[in-house]
Amino acid sequence: MAFTYRRQLTIEWGQCDPAGIVFNSRFFEIFDANTWRLFEAALSVKPHELADAFGIFGIPLVDVSANFIKPIKFGDVVDTASRISEFRRSSFDVEHRLSVNGELAVEGNETRVWASRRKDDPEKLGGATIPDDVIARFEPA
Amino acid sequence: MAFTYRRQLTIEWGQCDPAGIVFNSRFFEIFDANTWRLFEAALSVKPHELADAFGIFGIPLVDVSANFIKPIKFGDVVDTASRISEFRRSSFDVEHRLSVNGELAVEGNETRVWASRRKDDPEKLGGATIPDDVIARFEPA
Amino acid sequence: MAFTYRRQLTIEWGQCDPAGIVFNSRFFEIFDANTWRLFEAALSVKPHELADAFGIFGIPLVDVSANFIKPIKFGDVVDTASRISEFRRSSFDVEHRLSVNGELAVEGNETRVWASRRKDDPEKLGGATIPDDVIARFEPA
Amino acid sequence: MAFTYRRQLTIEWGQCDPAGIVFNSRFFEIFDANTWRLFEAALSVKPHELADAFGIFGIPLVDVSANFIKPIKFGDVVDTASRISEFRRSSFDVEHRLSVNGELAVEGNETRVWASRRKDDPEKLGGATIPDDVIARFEPA
Repeated sequence: MAFTYRRQLTIEWGQCDPAGIVFNSRFFEIFDANTWRLFEAALSVKPHELADAFGIFGIPLVDVSANFIKPIKFGDVVDTASRISEFRRSSFDVEHRLSVNGELAVEGNETRVWASRRKDDPEKLGGATIPDDVIARFEPA
Repeated sequence: MAFTYRRQLTIEWGQCDPAGIVFNSRFFEIFDANTWRLFEAALSVKPHELADAFGIFGIPLVDVSANFIKPIKFGDVVDTASRISEFRRSSFDVEHRLSVNGELAVEGNETRVWASRRKDDPEKLGGATIPDDVIARFEPA
Repeated sequence: MAFTYRRQLTIEWGQCDPAGIVFNSRFFEIFDANTWRLFEAALSVKPHELADAFGIFGIPLVDVSANFIKPIKFGDVVDTASRISEFRRSSFDVEHRLSVNGELAVEGNETRVWASRRKDDPEKLGGATIPDDVIARFEPA
Repeated sequence: MAFTYRRQLTIEWGQCDPAGIVFNSRFFEIFDANTWRLFEAALSVKPHELADAFGIFGIPLVDVSANFIKPIKFGDVVDTASRISEFRRSSFDVEHRLSVNGELAVEGNETRVWASRRKDDPEKLGGATIPDDVIARFEPA
């Protein structure tokens, strides 16, 4: 099992909609925050220092999906678990699982690029090769 | 081509992140708002009256995905187009396309349920049959 | 000094704007969450059980203000401290202070009502008398 | 009466909380967007070109307050009106008024700085003198 970042959070009033459940866009905020924290946990680099530490522009999102299995309500205590499910040369997938009382409630998948400015056109971003020692940090202990 | 709802919007400062582009969760707010407006346009029913008008609980989201093709920046004028790509017995798919200057920038797909409270357990939701005359309203003119 | 709720949080990418600092609306999410947590800490009642526990509708906000003293950036570690600054018969003020590295960065003040449904018109809310034993829980130890 | 920017908006599902009314932080998104649009309407400069057009860093917010007079619900049609209530040498106040069915529901006030990078320390911002011809554009016709 790959290196996994876990945190627990409690759903706030302002994250919920008139049906009393978390509004869907809020889950993508949680996914994004968890990806940064997963990298921080694996690489011991603060999120706002990640780009400089690895000479990249960042890790922009190219695809994301979510599957809502059970509604999550105001006050629910949510266990989140995030891990890299696949590394490719210059992109990777992150899997997020949110559970309440041990039952899976929301699943998310992000595809992100390890991106740097293109030498021929610095206004544009391109995929850079993910260093082997970065990948190694996410491997099972 | 199915009935399509279109609106133009201009990206606000508060929708953008430190890279100067729309933060991904904001697109799901746009998708959600467009789905309500698509139903309003097709059925001539205000979003907040949709549930009562059709005797349902609502149209909860069960799956959503987005594909980020080109970054969208602060001040960009975005053309959005949303339509039902498929109706099934009690669920349906909504396709959202966001373009800037005629180029597709973001694609989104939602799967939603035409949901009512279950008779055996009103605390739970179940899929109800989507009325034929609802489906007919979304057909090509 | 009144009973004070404190928590530390780290600013996320998605909370920041193109200037790289927290977008102002995000602070009101923090204030709101802290008020619920302040009540939870003082009264030992979960936020989503507060209304039922005290036979009220809720604690709606009637006024709020914020003063931005220093910008707060992506990755900043923020110490938050929230307390009731004044109780009146059926309303109260909450003071929120956010500091980074020991320096006050943002101050917020909310005025909220201890509200119940009006007997003459249950569609409307009115102020209810805040119980003395609620007020006592927020007094200095 | 000063130059006033007006727009109408319809409250979305995702802007509302479990009480079915607009969550307070959403109003600050509306205030912010309206301030940019007020400047666009008065100065004929796109929001994302404002800083460059006037050689400033931007118009950062230093104080903001809101007064919630009547709840605004999902589906409500809101008339917004925003104007500069006062100009000072390097700062100004913006007043926002949101009405539903002709009744004032929310009032907001922002204080912002006409800010540029300080010559002695470009990391810091300072107030710059607001040009007379900018101020003139906001005067009553």
